[in-house]
Amino acid sequence: MSFLRFFGKQRSAPLARERLQILLAHERSPAGSDLVSLLREEILAVIARHVQVDQDKVCVKMDRDENVSVLEIDVELPLDAVVKAA
Amino acid sequence: MSFLRFFGKQRSAPLARERLQILLAHERSPAGSDLVSLLREEILAVIARHVQVDQDKVCVKMDRDENVSVLEIDVELPLDAVVKAA
Repeated sequence: MSFLRFFGKQRSAPLARERLQILLAHERSPAGSDLVSLLREEILAVIARHVQVDQDKVCVKMDRDENVSVLEIDVELPLDAVVKAA
Repeated sequence: MSFLRFFGKQRSAPLARERLQILLAHERSPAGSDLVSLLREEILAVIARHVQVDQDKVCVKMDRDENVSVLEIDVELPLDAVVKAA
C-alpha cells in the first residue's frame, strides 16, 4: 500500500497548520518486551529537538493486544514551527 | 480507525521474528521544511539504542508529494533482540 495516499488528502484551501503523525507498531510474541513504551519518550524528544511543539497540540495514544503494541503520536504544528538547527 | 486492527493479524503459528514498523507522515505546505528527512536518522538511532538491529533487516522508504512527506521504517527483529538497559 502507498502510505502517501493513506495520509495525503487533496486540499482545496491552503494549509492552516502543519501536521506530524507517527505510527509505531511492534508485532511481538505475547511475552515480548514492551518496546513501544520504551521508544515513546525518546521519539517525542527527537521531535521536540526539531520543531517547537505546543504540548497541548500533541496527542499520544497507545494500544496493545496479545500480539501487537501500537503507539500513535499526532502533533499539530503552526506553519512557522521554527526548525531548530539540527 | 483502530490502528491495532490495521497492524494486528490473527496468528495461528507462534511468531518466528518480531517486527517493528514506524510510519511518519508530515502534512505540510508545499514550501514546508522536510521534517521527515531531519527526523529519519535520529529515529533510527533511538531504535538502535534499545534493540540489536541487523542492518540488512531494516527497510527504509521515503515518499513525498506536494502536500505530504511519508517515511516508512520496517525492522525485523530476532525473538531474543536484547533490549539494552534504557
